[in-house]
This record gives sequence, structure tokens and C-alpha cells, in this order.
Amino acid sequence: MTQTTIPQRIQTLRDEMAQAGLKAVIVPRTDPHLSEYISDHWHTVRFLTGFTGSAGTLVVTEKGAYLWVDSRYFLQGESQTAGTGIVIMKDGLPETPSINAFLTENLSEGDTVGINGLLMSVNDTAVLRSALAKRGIKLDVNFDPIDRVWADRPALPSDPAFIHDEKYAGKSATEKLADLRHDFESAGAQAYFTSALDEIAWLLNLRSTDVPCNPVATSFLYVGADGARLFIDPAKLNPAVNEYLSASGVETAPYGSALEYLATVPADVTVLLSGARASGAVASVLDGHFTLGESPVSIPKAVKNETQIQGIRNAHVRDGVYMVRSIMEIQRIVNECKPLTEMGVADILERNRRTDPLFFDLSFESICGFGPHGAIVHYSATPETDSALSLGNLLLIDSGANYIDATTDITRTIALGTPTEAMRHDFTLVMKGHIAIATAIYPEGTHGHQLDAMARMPLWKEGKSYLHGTGHGVGHFLNVHEGPQSIRLNDTMAPLMPGMLTSNEPGVYLADRYGIRCENLVLTIPYETTEFGNFYAFETVTMCPFDRALFDTSIMSPEEIEWVNNYHRTVYDRLAPALTEEERTWLADACAPL
Amino acid sequence: MTQTTIPQRIQTLRDEMAQAGLKAVIVPRTDPHLSEYISDHWHTVRFLTGFTGSAGTLVVTEKGAYLWVDSRYFLQGESQTAGTGIVIMKDGLPETPSINAFLTENLSEGDTVGINGLLMSVNDTAVLRSALAKRGIKLDVNFDPIDRVWADRPALPSDPAFIHDEKYAGKSATEKLADLRHDFESAGAQAYFTSALDEIAWLLNLRSTDVPCNPVATSFLYVGADGARLFIDPAKLNPAVNEYLSASGVETAPYGSALEYLATVPADVTVLLSGARASGAVASVLDGHFTLGESPVSIPKAVKNETQIQGIRNAHVRDGVYMVRSIMEIQRIVNECKPLTEMGVADILERNRRTDPLFFDLSFESICGFGPHGAIVHYSATPETDSALSLGNLLLIDSGANYIDATTDITRTIALGTPTEAMRHDFTLVMKGHIAIATAIYPEGTHGHQLDAMARMPLWKEGKSYLHGTGHGVGHFLNVHEGPQSIRLNDTMAPLMPGMLTSNEPGVYLADRYGIRCENLVLTIPYETTEFGNFYAFETVTMCPFDRALFDTSIMSPEEIEWVNNYHRTVYDRLAPALTEEERTWLADACAPL
Repeated sequence: MTQTTIPQRIQTLRDEMAQAGLKAVIVPRTDPHLSEYISDHWHTVRFLTGFTGSAGTLVVTEKGAYLWVDSRYFLQGESQTAGTGIVIMKDGLPETPSINAFLTENLSEGDTVGINGLLMSVNDTAVLRSALAKRGIKLDVNFDPIDRVWADRPALPSDPAFIHDEKYAGKSATEKLADLRHDFESAGAQAYFTSALDEIAWLLNLRSTDVPCNPVATSFLYVGADGARLFIDPAKLNPAVNEYLSASGVETAPYGSALEYLATVPADVTVLLSGARASGAVASVLDGHFTLGESPVSIPKAVKNETQIQGIRNAHVRDGVYMVRSIMEIQRIVNECKPLTEMGVADILERNRRTDPLFFDLSFESICGFGPHGAIVHYSATPETDSALSLGNLLLIDSGANYIDATTDITRTIALGTPTEAMRHDFTLVMKGHIAIATAIYPEGTHGHQLDAMARMPLWKEGKSYLHGTGHGVGHFLNVHEGPQSIRLNDTMAPLMPGMLTSNEPGVYLADRYGIRCENLVLTIPYETTEFGNFYAFETVTMCPFDRALFDTSIMSPEEIEWVNNYHRTVYDRLAPALTEEERTWLADACAPL
Repeated sequence: MTQTTIPQRIQTLRDEMAQAGLKAVIVPRTDPHLSEYISDHWHTVRFLTGFTGSAGTLVVTEKGAYLWVDSRYFLQGESQTAGTGIVIMKDGLPETPSINAFLTENLSEGDTVGINGLLMSVNDTAVLRSALAKRGIKLDVNFDPIDRVWADRPALPSDPAFIHDEKYAGKSATEKLADLRHDFESAGAQAYFTSALDEIAWLLNLRSTDVPCNPVATSFLYVGADGARLFIDPAKLNPAVNEYLSASGVETAPYGSALEYLATVPADVTVLLSGARASGAVASVLDGHFTLGESPVSIPKAVKNETQIQGIRNAHVRDGVYMVRSIMEIQRIVNECKPLTEMGVADILERNRRTDPLFFDLSFESICGFGPHGAIVHYSATPETDSALSLGNLLLIDSGANYIDATTDITRTIALGTPTEAMRHDFTLVMKGHIAIATAIYPEGTHGHQLDAMARMPLWKEGKSYLHGTGHGVGHFLNVHEGPQSIRLNDTMAPLMPGMLTSNEPGVYLADRYGIRCENLVLTIPYETTEFGNFYAFETVTMCPFDRALFDTSIMSPEEIEWVNNYHRTVYDRLAPALTEEERTWLADACAPL
């Protein structure tokens, strides 16, 4: 195994640049599927910089190397690249230029910038190309020297793919493909091409373990008017899966042949692409005979069917049992003053969840932040940071699992020992926002951004706030983050529709003190139809008590107190049958009326 | 005076179309300043169709005539055009094509559509042109035959212009122009051209009476790096105004010479235009040397200065006095069972407001809707519809004035006789939404659409709703509707900034029964600065009690009741000194704690 330093790696990349006649190269931290979570093969930015954050873009010029990171990673970016000569570009600060502005300011007319066009969306590529073109700078979207720069680059994953039983998926691949054909035809197209791994997994009821926590199979999918073609490593497909795909009207072809195949699609076939989720390279191969639009898979995937909804309700009862067991265990250890660290908490959660017969994997790496670590929104304990728990502060636990019948995502904030008045006050403000969302009723057509401020208002009234979204869509035995709906400050242009599963997770983060987040998943359900139209409500599906010790009822309305008491009664009723006598006693206490 | 029928007028237009070689013509209901309220000269749609609504677009083809109107005007459009052969196109219904879709479906390749390019924004013209071009249909933006079609067309208004004293405006035209130059230079332009009458009025502290209720002077304004040129009918300018303009660095030129002048602006001068507020004809004359952006006047005009804010507070106390007097008078007449109609109510309001030394005009035609008429959102009583008031239903009064020191806009819903339980319940739901907005605290950068749902949630929870926005910006001795901020379902992309004046007017409308709307104006003010940033609040400036008889305190929180009591206490304290003994007694009763 070659051991190279970061500067050596950057220099090798620079040599490749020079040979290709490029003045700069852009290296996005993603894969050809524009995934948020990526397999080792695509961790090029980590290899080139040492930076391990989940978002960041590297730009290498003849003289410098620059890594754009967002506010979550300002400190981590600095520390992980210290001594390498890489400059951390703090995205979002007024003094930091965008990558496009930086390139146009630092390059000259006639220069060329290189990128692997598979790693940037059609939309972003168009913006980049147009920004560069204004200064007479060219863009080469076929620059992909990483195999040569990265000698011991991990191979593409070849984990086996498997079928997600229709018993849990609720709808066959054949039916989904038929619906998709109808939808792309309505959009004036004769085919749909997708690189998005969660779309392919959902469309074909196919799963794998290529990406940690995301049960997807690395592949591309072309769906035409008559047939469909899945581009996937044949080593991933056993005979049963091959037969299943064939029976579903899906041919297979090697993973690497997707672009070649697209080049052979007749020019009179208009291919629908998602401007946000298809890459510039794909659009480029289609040479004009494509149309950009919203993904036709996005809404059908987000709107869960009855089978999925039943799975979601079932899985959340079981997940609640594991949460209760874990919280009991954590509290017992801490109360007995035995040693337990943040990573130990994550282990307890995982151990309990793994007992489930339908457990598949965690849905994301557990976030267990004690005290000040809870105030770091995307904290992930490492052996270096792993804190020992002790009495007198708050523990924030954000965790979840992929079960075969549903994906869970829950955050609870737990007081270890007796909480201070300030902790109780802040927790109750967060819960007031949580309850405002949980009890919202809204007409058909309402977008999540219209509800977002209701979750924040109790905090805003005291000059507090949180910077993340209030809610994200959640996949079904799939990615824990999915679109198109969300509950956030800005509009994602998608209404909340019955069957959509969304998180409800306001929080507040007090630097160097503690963090609080209260997260349940909520399902949009029909509520009533009146002369004013159709109205929807949220059904809370997550089943786990909030820490009673943290409520300050003096700042709660009677309706808010009633909501908590009703919720806790439901939690008790649903979980009790699956608990031991001792657990039931604990839960009865945890669910006693405020 | 020629008396022609609607079909004859349409036929004359069709003859002009044929002579110009056009297959269709679009006639928007606006003026070359894209105004919402227009002078008689520009009421072409009304002349050609008989339709008097405030929005509508006529399309005439060789065979047909089609009037697109929105849901407010479905019934009115049908009845006012009955028997003319004009087809009412109900905009917003799924079966109604857009004008662009209609034209592309009904014309053929090579055909040409005509429009007076001054009557459509740059943005809309671009969309129209591109939609037509896809089918090979051309667009002629210089088709303006109305002077020939409309024999007795009213002349352009030549009312005198006058100066809005800096004592009330708070900032000189010279300073505003200097700021504007700085702003358009920052946007990479060397000049700004505006057709928007409220922008010109604000920039130059110049007013007139060209448009009913909007104290603007018909004109165009070009501001270059050194000088400025106002295109205006010289008959409107007396020597004092001429001298004032000249001293402010503003030359004048005839109204009709604006486009000719723009054609002489050197090609190396980039002129900034607002894509939404400048017309396609203006962009077309500039032949490429313009840049589209947000209007640089929009935010400075919306953010009121300290002088304006003081004027706003003062004017709202005086306006409150006139409201109190009017409500007392209305209630006395009705309680004595004497005759009073909706138009009579409007007369009382206007008579009281006219006593103000700084009264200039109404800020819009008063909306007085009794019972079922209150449920028609844009109801305007006419001699034909004018209802007599009686005991046992609600009276909705939406009215306001342009005073020299501020513009007001207030809606009160008043019970005549004893209200039913349903009326009190619905009124209280509306007030709960009103109070949610009035008490909102929000961080810097918050857009109005983020707050909108808080005003609706109490109604939504009972399957009720309203379809209009919750709040609009309000000008200063200027248009009662102004941008850029608003509080509505969709994002208008403008944050609420300290100094902005916005309405807070949720409502509910029960067809054939009654309408309820509760409107105050609220000023955005700084609230506090914390480690989480700057937070803002609303200061309610409107001073007039809500009808105590309509509150159902059983569904109000203690905080909501307290807000009403505090507001009423402030109203009493501010208005009492200006009232007679009898009025004070009435007000004390009206402001007694709930």
C-alpha cells in the first residue's frame, strides 16, 4: 500500500491537470449518483485532503488548493487540513467567494477548468458553464484522473443486491414502472433516466448494502416506453434477482456502460431528466434530446401506500421498545455512577435494535452528544472526543434504524441527574414548537415552509433559534433523508400530501452548554373536508416518551399539556404489551400525566 | 359623443388588426406604468367589454373575443358582458387555458399577435414571446390602435403636480437620487429607468391626483450617473415645482418623449430595469444595453424613515378618532332603526376623515359589506346592490385615507344588534390569527410567507380558510398596496425589515351569510439582539377598538385576552385626548377589558 502525503496527492492531481491542459479542477464530494452518503470508492475529497465531513468541494489550481465547506465544518475543516497547505473556504460568509466567482476571478480568458461531469447536477453544471463562459473560460466535463492519482483506490462496491419483498413494499416494480411510463409521457417524454440510487431502489424494490446506512445498489436505470435497462455490476446479481428483474421487464447491463447506452438512444426519443438529480455528463451525452423537469419518481416514492404505512406504524412500536430499553439502561448505568461514554450509548442503542427480527442496519450513524457536545448539531463521537456521561447535564440522542418494514429516525433529550431550571425552560420551548407542528391542521396544497415558523416561534419570542430545518422527508426501508417535501425556512416547492412521512425536530443549541432536540416522525393524513376544501393533519408515528423531568408546565398551555399526556398515554398503550414487567413499570412512570 | 355598442367596438379593433396583418390582439387592463389603479384614459378593457373589474385581459381574434378574469370576477365578468358575445375565461380553473396556451393552440405558424408593448412587463413579454416562438408565431409589440378605436377616449390626466414637503417625507429628492445612483452602480449599471408611478412619486417627493386614490403623477423617470430626466406633461408643472425639480437636479421633458430619449442613450450605458415593473417596450428600445434586476427603489421606499414613522403614528391616532366617530354614528342610526345603507356608511367614513387638516383623499374606495355582501371579498357597493343595514348581522368596513403624513388602511367587523354564537366564534378565530401575527417575534431575514400560516391556523383547525393574503405593504402618502414585502402563502422573496409597514388582515367569508376581517397596520421594529442574532417585532399602529360584543373568550388563551385588553388600553389612551366627553364615554366602554 502506497503511503503518500496530502501535498503529494495534490501534486499528482496537478500533474494530471497540466497534462490535460487545465488551469483548475473541481472535485465535488459525491458520487455519479449525486448521493449524500457515498461508498469508499468515491471518497476522493477525503483522500485528497484528509477532510472527513459530509459536504465539501475541493478546487485545485496551479498554485493552490481550496476546500469549500459550510458552517458545520469550519473548525473541522481547519483542523483536518492543518499543515497541508489547503485553504479552507468558509462558504456562506460574506467575504468568501462562491466557487464560480473564485474561478472567474483567478483564471484568464482561454483557460480551461476540468471536472468529472458525473459529479455535478445538470442545473449546477449549467450555472458553472455560464459563469465561466462570461469570462471566456472553458469547461472540460470529462476530466477523471482519480484512478491514476489514487493508487490504492477502493473498488466499486459489489455487495449482493436483493429484493425488497412486495409484502413490505406494497407495490410491485412492474406496477411502479407502468405508472412511471404514464408520468413521463404526460411530461412529453418517451423515456426516463435516473442516477438516483434511492429512486432505483424504490422503483425496482431492489436493495443492497453499497452505502453505509443507505440500503441502495449502485446502478443507473433507463426506462423507455417498452423496456427498462438497469446498469449494474453483474456480480451483485444472483440468479433469483436476475429472474425477478427479467420478470419485471428489466434488462441488465454493466454499470460502466450507462453513458455508452444513452449515446445510442435515438434522437427522436426525448429523455426526461431531473435537473437536480441527473448529472451534467448524462445531459451532455443526450446531446439535446432530453427535457429537464421534476423527477417523476419523487412524489410516488414519498407518498407511502397502505402497506408501507402499516409497516411504518409497526416498526415504530418496536423501535420505541428498543428506545425505552436503551434509555432505561443508560439511566441505570449513569445513576449507579458506572462508566459510560457517548460511543457506549450508541452501542447500547444498536445492540437493542439489532434484536429486531426485521432489523437491517442503522439508518444513520447515531448522534450521541453529552452536554456541550449536544450543542454541535452534526456531532459524531470519535475515540478522540468521546465524552464520559455524568450527572448534571443533558444527553442528546439522535438515532434510527432501517427495518425491512420501515425506516426510523428519533431524537430524545434526556436529563442525567436533576436538570437546571434553564434546561427545563429551553426544553419546554422546543417542545412547544414540536407540539405546534404535531397539532397543525392545514389545507391541501400547503408546503412545509408555511408551517416551519410555528416550530420556531416559542424560541424566537425569547431571542433563540436553530439553524437547521424543522423536518425532512423519510424514505421507506431506504434513505433517512428524502424529498421532495420538507419543513424548513425556504420553500422546496412540494406540498405535504397524505402518505408523506416527515420529521418534526425543532431544537436549540447553546454553545459550550448543551443541545436540545425533540424529534418524532409524522405522517400526513386526511383530516376533514369542508366547503373550504380538504384539510390534512399529522399523525405522530414515533412511540417513545419525552423526558418528564424536563417539562416546565408553567409556560405550557392546557392544550400543550394535554397533547403530551395524550401522546404519552398512546405510547404506553402501544409499547406495554411488548415490555417486561420491570420495563412496563418504568414506562408507566415515564408516561404519567404532567 | 359617439354611442357605439360593445360588438361594434370589438369589430373596429378587429378591422385595425386586419389592417396591421394580425391574427390576434392582447389588451391588458393596465397603463404604461403597469399600475393597479389606472386613469380613465387607460380603461380600454372597460371600453371594449363593459367589464369594470380591477383585473382582466382581453384577447380578440378574427372570430372571437375572450376576457380572462380571476375568481373574484367570474360572476361579474359574465353579467357585465352578457349579450356581447365576449367569452369569459375563468382564470385558475383547470379547464381554462392560459392566454399563452390559448394563443399557441388557436393560431398557426407564421401568424402574428399584436400588443401595446408598454402594457406588459419585460418578464411577461419574454414568457409570451418565447411561448409563441415555439409554435412559429410572431409578436408585434407596437400595436396601439386604441386612439382610433375609441373616438371619445378621455385625455391623459393633466392634474397639477405638487411637492410632498420634506417635513413629512423625511428625506429630500436629492438625497434619494444620490442613494439610488449608489445602488444602481453596485448592481453594475450606469442608469435606472422607471415607469412605476409610486417609485417616481417617492423618489422625487412629488405627488398629483392622476389616479383615483393613488396620489401619483403620470410620468417616466430616467436617472443617470449625473442627471435625471422626468418625462411629464408640462401642463402639470407650475413654476414652483419646476424650480424645485431643477434644484433637485431633475430636468423635465414631455411625457410622450420617454422612449425616444431612451433610444438616444449611448450603448455603453447599461440601464437597470425592474423585470416586473418595466415594460417590454422599454426593454425593446434599449436594445440589449440594459440589465434586469430587483428595483433599487423598492426597499428604500418600503423602509420608512423616522419622520415617516412619526407621521404614521400621528395619522393613525387621528384616523382612529374618525373611525370611532363613524362607528358611533352608524350604531346610533341602526339602533334607532333609521335608514342607512352600505353607501351611506362609506359617506359617513369619508365625511369624518375629510375633517382632518392633513386629509388628501381616500386611500381606496371604501368596502362596506353588510351580511352576505361582507362575504364577497372585493365587494364594492353600487346603487344597484346597496343594502340597507338592519339588526342581526355583521357589517364589514374596510377603509382608509391618504393623509399628507401617512396612508391608512383599516378593517373592522361590527355586530349590528346581538351577534349569534357562530358569528362570535368565527370572529374570535380570526382575531386569534390576527393576534398571532401581532405578537410574532422573528429573526432578521424572515420573510412574510413564513408567518402567514400562523394567522390561518386557528381557522384551519376548524376546516375554514381565506384565500387572500394576510398582509400587504403600505405606502407613505402613496399607494395603499406596495411591495416588496407581504405576508402571504407564497414567498415574495423580500424580508421584513425595520421600518416596513404591512397590513395584518386575516378574515373568513361564509357565502350568503357574512364576512369577517380584522385589519390593523403593523410596523416592523427592532426587538432584541442575542447570541442568535437580531430579532424584530411588529408595532401595531392602527388605533381603533375591535367590537367587544364579538369576542368569545372561552376559546381564547389568557395571553390572547391580555393582548386585546392591552391594545384597547393603548387605543383609549391615545384617542381620548382628541374626543368629546360623549365619545370618550363610548370609547371607554368599547375598550373595557374582556
